[in-house]
Amino acid sequence: MLFFMHKTAMIDVFSIIQYGLNEDIGTGDITTDYLQLGNQETQAFLVAKQRGVLAGLDVAFDVFTYLDNQVNCVTYRKDGDTVNPGDEIAKITGLTSALLQAERTALNILQRLSGIATCTSKMVEAIKPYQARLLDTRKTTPLLRQLERYAVRVGGGFNHRFGLYDMVLIKENHIRAVGSITEAVKRVWERNTAYRIEVEVTTIAELEEAVTSGVDRVMLDNMSVAEMKKAVKKFGEQVELEASGNVSLDTINEIASTGVFYISSGAITHSFTSLDISLLFKE
Amino acid sequence: MLFFMHKTAMIDVFSIIQYGLNEDIGTGDITTDYLQLGNQETQAFLVAKQRGVLAGLDVAFDVFTYLDNQVNCVTYRKDGDTVNPGDEIAKITGLTSALLQAERTALNILQRLSGIATCTSKMVEAIKPYQARLLDTRKTTPLLRQLERYAVRVGGGFNHRFGLYDMVLIKENHIRAVGSITEAVKRVWERNTAYRIEVEVTTIAELEEAVTSGVDRVMLDNMSVAEMKKAVKKFGEQVELEASGNVSLDTINEIASTGVFYISSGAITHSFTSLDISLLFKE
Amino acid sequence: MLFFMHKTAMIDVFSIIQYGLNEDIGTGDITTDYLQLGNQETQAFLVAKQRGVLAGLDVAFDVFTYLDNQVNCVTYRKDGDTVNPGDEIAKITGLTSALLQAERTALNILQRLSGIATCTSKMVEAIKPYQARLLDTRKTTPLLRQLERYAVRVGGGFNHRFGLYDMVLIKENHIRAVGSITEAVKRVWERNTAYRIEVEVTTIAELEEAVTSGVDRVMLDNMSVAEMKKAVKKFGEQVELEASGNVSLDTINEIASTGVFYISSGAITHSFTSLDISLLFKE
Amino acid sequence: MLFFMHKTAMIDVFSIIQYGLNEDIGTGDITTDYLQLGNQETQAFLVAKQRGVLAGLDVAFDVFTYLDNQVNCVTYRKDGDTVNPGDEIAKITGLTSALLQAERTALNILQRLSGIATCTSKMVEAIKPYQARLLDTRKTTPLLRQLERYAVRVGGGFNHRFGLYDMVLIKENHIRAVGSITEAVKRVWERNTAYRIEVEVTTIAELEEAVTSGVDRVMLDNMSVAEMKKAVKKFGEQVELEASGNVSLDTINEIASTGVFYISSGAITHSFTSLDISLLFKE
Amino acid sequence: MLFFMHKTAMIDVFSIIQYGLNEDIGTGDITTDYLQLGNQETQAFLVAKQRGVLAGLDVAFDVFTYLDNQVNCVTYRKDGDTVNPGDEIAKITGLTSALLQAERTALNILQRLSGIATCTSKMVEAIKPYQARLLDTRKTTPLLRQLERYAVRVGGGFNHRFGLYDMVLIKENHIRAVGSITEAVKRVWERNTAYRIEVEVTTIAELEEAVTSGVDRVMLDNMSVAEMKKAVKKFGEQVELEASGNVSLDTINEIASTGVFYISSGAITHSFTSLDISLLFKE
Amino acid sequence: MLFFMHKTAMIDVFSIIQYGLNEDIGTGDITTDYLQLGNQETQAFLVAKQRGVLAGLDVAFDVFTYLDNQVNCVTYRKDGDTVNPGDEIAKITGLTSALLQAERTALNILQRLSGIATCTSKMVEAIKPYQARLLDTRKTTPLLRQLERYAVRVGGGFNHRFGLYDMVLIKENHIRAVGSITEAVKRVWERNTAYRIEVEVTTIAELEEAVTSGVDRVMLDNMSVAEMKKAVKKFGEQVELEASGNVSLDTINEIASTGVFYISSGAITHSFTSLDISLLFKE
Repeated sequence: MLFFMHKTAMIDVFSIIQYGLNEDIGTGDITTDYLQLGNQETQAFLVAKQRGVLAGLDVAFDVFTYLDNQVNCVTYRKDGDTVNPGDEIAKITGLTSALLQAERTALNILQRLSGIATCTSKMVEAIKPYQARLLDTRKTTPLLRQLERYAVRVGGGFNHRFGLYDMVLIKENHIRAVGSITEAVKRVWERNTAYRIEVEVTTIAELEEAVTSGVDRVMLDNMSVAEMKKAVKKFGEQVELEASGNVSLDTINEIASTGVFYISSGAITHSFTSLDISLLFKE
Repeated sequence: MLFFMHKTAMIDVFSIIQYGLNEDIGTGDITTDYLQLGNQETQAFLVAKQRGVLAGLDVAFDVFTYLDNQVNCVTYRKDGDTVNPGDEIAKITGLTSALLQAERTALNILQRLSGIATCTSKMVEAIKPYQARLLDTRKTTPLLRQLERYAVRVGGGFNHRFGLYDMVLIKENHIRAVGSITEAVKRVWERNTAYRIEVEVTTIAELEEAVTSGVDRVMLDNMSVAEMKKAVKKFGEQVELEASGNVSLDTINEIASTGVFYISSGAITHSFTSLDISLLFKE
Repeated sequence: MLFFMHKTAMIDVFSIIQYGLNEDIGTGDITTDYLQLGNQETQAFLVAKQRGVLAGLDVAFDVFTYLDNQVNCVTYRKDGDTVNPGDEIAKITGLTSALLQAERTALNILQRLSGIATCTSKMVEAIKPYQARLLDTRKTTPLLRQLERYAVRVGGGFNHRFGLYDMVLIKENHIRAVGSITEAVKRVWERNTAYRIEVEVTTIAELEEAVTSGVDRVMLDNMSVAEMKKAVKKFGEQVELEASGNVSLDTINEIASTGVFYISSGAITHSFTSLDISLLFKE
Repeated sequence: MLFFMHKTAMIDVFSIIQYGLNEDIGTGDITTDYLQLGNQETQAFLVAKQRGVLAGLDVAFDVFTYLDNQVNCVTYRKDGDTVNPGDEIAKITGLTSALLQAERTALNILQRLSGIATCTSKMVEAIKPYQARLLDTRKTTPLLRQLERYAVRVGGGFNHRFGLYDMVLIKENHIRAVGSITEAVKRVWERNTAYRIEVEVTTIAELEEAVTSGVDRVMLDNMSVAEMKKAVKKFGEQVELEASGNVSLDTINEIASTGVFYISSGAITHSFTSLDISLLFKE
Repeated sequence: MLFFMHKTAMIDVFSIIQYGLNEDIGTGDITTDYLQLGNQETQAFLVAKQRGVLAGLDVAFDVFTYLDNQVNCVTYRKDGDTVNPGDEIAKITGLTSALLQAERTALNILQRLSGIATCTSKMVEAIKPYQARLLDTRKTTPLLRQLERYAVRVGGGFNHRFGLYDMVLIKENHIRAVGSITEAVKRVWERNTAYRIEVEVTTIAELEEAVTSGVDRVMLDNMSVAEMKKAVKKFGEQVELEASGNVSLDTINEIASTGVFYISSGAITHSFTSLDISLLFKE
Repeated sequence: MLFFMHKTAMIDVFSIIQYGLNEDIGTGDITTDYLQLGNQETQAFLVAKQRGVLAGLDVAFDVFTYLDNQVNCVTYRKDGDTVNPGDEIAKITGLTSALLQAERTALNILQRLSGIATCTSKMVEAIKPYQARLLDTRKTTPLLRQLERYAVRVGGGFNHRFGLYDMVLIKENHIRAVGSITEAVKRVWERNTAYRIEVEVTTIAELEEAVTSGVDRVMLDNMSVAEMKKAVKKFGEQVELEASGNVSLDTINEIASTGVFYISSGAITHSFTSLDISLLFKE
């Protein structure tokens, strides 16, 4: 059996554009081909149909550019801007066939990323009075993590670790497997020379053990607001505290009020609503 | 300049698994590595936390299998089954390290596909009394179209064309570009020898022109229920009619009652909520 | 075992050029390297050595451009033109080393595609008095289908379905597997929402069953001319009829005279003769 | 600008199979899918419809195996065997859907390679009384050179250099670029430490210059039979002589009679006729 | 211009084996092919010709396995073992042709990795009396970093950050670009939520500024032993200290004696000597 | 099992640059990103820190260009030049972030190739009085063979065969497998029509057998100087002789004095020392 089984390749944005277009266009856009539009040019406008925060404009433009490198994009809004229904976002000029073929793929990306930025932005707004930073999680769409993390930042959030390779996060199952938090942290210190260490805990007692064993951050998993307040009071100076679980627009303000430094939310990347944006061709 | 500019490659499911895992694992799961779990084995359970329809179990299992080809999956439920909170879906046995490393990627896929199947299933339920078939659209997540179309079928829906290459769909912009529906359809017939032809219309007059020019299907875009009824009455025998626009759980029953043969919905793939499913390790 | 076994990637023309050149050049053109030609430039001419129809000039030029993006191609003829022995087709100016290295790959493509266009063109000429359209088949060179279909169009032919994924074609083996034409067509209708349906038949009785069960097209496989005439007379108004089998330059006129709408030929892509074309360097 | 412009990747046979299948199957074989054949198995027979020499059976079987790794192939004939119309070549047992989906791609490869072997074999037969070896050229189908060279060997021919990288071949254009055969060969010797050297000549005088300058082989391009005889007589002992140009089944015997050691033919790979072979499902 | 310019793909070990073999074998091992060894099997032995520490045995075996998946490897030694001239390391049994074709690639990897492990091991031995850990650097062979880091660990060293993405390291040029250590660290803290922070300093004053601004580690670049002692004394409790520059077998013991926690060495991966190992076929 | 198991792809230089950068940069250079350097530009100098021969400047520049295609490189020295400590090699101007991100990868390549050129150059210098050419071997770093062979040429050496596919080299194990040198060479001649043939021998008797059987070159493996002299005297006119084994800076002059035509050395590519070169940013 082979030494390292899997390829450590991560998909890049260029490939996402390429695969996205190919998925849609396949062996060719037969409608446009049959209509024989030749070198006809078109002006089209990206228009918002809903209120929300934009994210992904550059990627969307790259989709058009991929099919016609003469495409011209004049932008009226930029990533991070809030738009309202009817707002023109950009004017795109290029080959009619290229615009028709890139439209769906460009919008599929732009609408999703803007949906994430919008959702993140609402959460961030809700915790503004407090020091807490909103973090994303690894609950992202497979293959789109890099883009979705970008959308979270555009919405005012921060990024947690990228994946399993760039931060140590000892969860309940790890602890069970090696016996105790203390033993787990000890093993990590024997080999780790480069990464931060976080431990997931569910009680104040576990939190105390984690702090004693020497970690950088502790995730308070599904703790009540009262317990989190206690955690912050006792250990907030010695270690970074991160609230996790049951985070929603309804609960996040109260969670932030406990004084935790981080709040992480899966919903901003796994259950957002796409922002409605259209491409309208000039009449 | 190169003859055919873009690669007509579409990503396959095996690559989605591979890229998905690599995105998450990168240069290695440092937590598990540092804990030195060796050849330890674990039993874990996929458990539903919400009511919904399952989709994507085989893909999820393949994610585990990819990292440990000795993984054993005993299934209690299958794609298409409705689960309730607390229901055990499957038992997965394998290397602790493999389960820990595949968990997030497997769940990210399974939760999304089940979310789509659940959303589709509710829509399908709502139009059961009528002949209408629920269709998906091209408003899918870039690179996951093949999987998302599968989830739509699992939820009881049907698939519209895959992309721009396997069915002719003349939309408003095409019509504007060539002058009229009649001219557009004529051009298509001069070259098309293999594909169905659909035209998008917004009025009964356009519908009549489409039928006369010889097409297989007409998309009634954002028509009122009253107009759709009229359309069905006048042309329902001669051509397939498809309702499109403003399709939601609130409106779909009434739309179906008009007698249209197809109803297409973008929301089932662009604004669904992931189904909450956990992987619980046996204590 | 993995869910979807195979990659749904199709090779693109850019990759064909790239792989074609690499196949020929490998680790480097040692002859040209050893001769140390430096930045020397050359003018060369593509010259026809046989009478035939050109196809693939743009691809051939792209081969040269791939190795030297300053190559200049002045064209005297274009795809679809008929050339005679001695006719100059184009003048190509560029680095001597690039021309020497691209020559064989460019010609290998151009000669084959022109061979197909020439062969197709003769068949098309032979059926000119009739309405019948000449179709290609899936009997193409592996990996070159997209290019060979293009050459067929250049020669005046039309394209049948691209592959197994964009049209339903129920053949004898399918019918045997499910019991009858009627049953097969019924099963297809239960799921198909996007594709045309064709059935292969060998007798008038089967043709009748196919028409009754509701299909778009019927392939008359190896039928005699007399039978085809009967088929056209009885069902030509209700369904598209396609003749298949024993199609050659000798027989095609008579087949077309039966009134069938399509005639499909495998020979135009599997047994054509390459058109002799040379690259002559200016003295 | 980048140092080495092109990728030195050559396509492998596994990729040819993969790309070939994907080209044909694309996003899925809809006919077979809609018919819901499930796990049904089939026995099928490869049957010759023409007389010829087989080549490519293993590759063809690999195509079936690629889609169903349980496929069983019982062979009655092997590569290099001559078959007659009606001869059963092999029995293939496996999933009905896999056989239906692999059939066209497998046959497209097998028929082409057998066509080359058949064509080669006739040429080889024609020169049997003489010592001459029949060589292929670089006039192969782009991307299939490795397979086509194999078919040439199966047919009794030998392979010339693979491409531009594994043998030095100084042609007329090279000579013109550097001034003389003598200068060209001198330059090659200054750097070449690993490869054979061949020079293309058109006259006895050039041949003499080539021999004097020190080469391993000389290609006699389009020389008359009389001249070739003279060439063999004067230099046949000192250098390998290769006849090239105007090689056909009509002329090859006389060319071989001149005593040349090699005869190279482009037609065996660029203008062969596919051998007709069918896959018949057992009734 | 495209949004994210480069592909974030890292080569995996399987691809290294594949590319390595292809680089050597190319279009085929002509020597072995021409000798027609058929299914002949061979027993061969990996034998050490020098004293050193083994690293990379599994990768080397995978090279053989790649070409013949029936190859059997019986190991007498394992990674991390010290071998002496003449020691048998493993017995490898398999197809003669596979062993001949994999030999060079397998040895090229094994000899390099063992060279690194040997070199690392000597350094580690020299600092045994002290707490200091030997770290590698990013001065690795392009594309082989993952393997070379593994060899460093086998030799008793530890790994520094993998690359630019998994730890913050503020070097002199960064400081110059933003004005001061304090400003640089401040900027990092505004965005960083997951990674350790290290700063490179050359004086005690800079070290003090770094500690004050709040970092996890400080790299003492090319400091004298006396200065490093002072650094350890003043700040060794508050921050991790890493010695860098002029690290060799001659100097490392004294450097370690200063009490620094880490010593990083580029030479162990950029200027090691391959360990001489042979593959001997049984007579 | 599949017909041809392995991919005959060789990695190209562009991919080496791409993979090299990705290996180092991964998901992004967090230090530079967090410092928000924006569009700031920098002038930097490549400076030699050791005496040696440069090789790989163009590849190194391509690394910078890959990340910022506006990078400007002014060169003061070129490949093949000897540099001394402190010599400025080139001035590179471009985006600060691009220079910081490309620096390590560019230097990792440049330092290694210059190390090989320097090592080769010393060997070549040592044999200057004699006709012998210094050859490299296949003992190169996996995936970097094409670049390392280039560095050997820059240093004044010559290239042996690229790999197993472009020259026949019958080694001891081959001879053992088929019985004798005579038999081995006979088998090769039955199939070989394009490649040079070399045989490895250890005695004068074997050399004689090799010459008699008809080969182009003989490798004298680990022969004493006295024996090599004898070999040259007896067979130097009839066959190319290549010395191999125990070739070092100490021994190579004497080996060359024997009159052999080639001397091959593995050490120049497997045990060289990287040449110390720095990138210094302008203050």
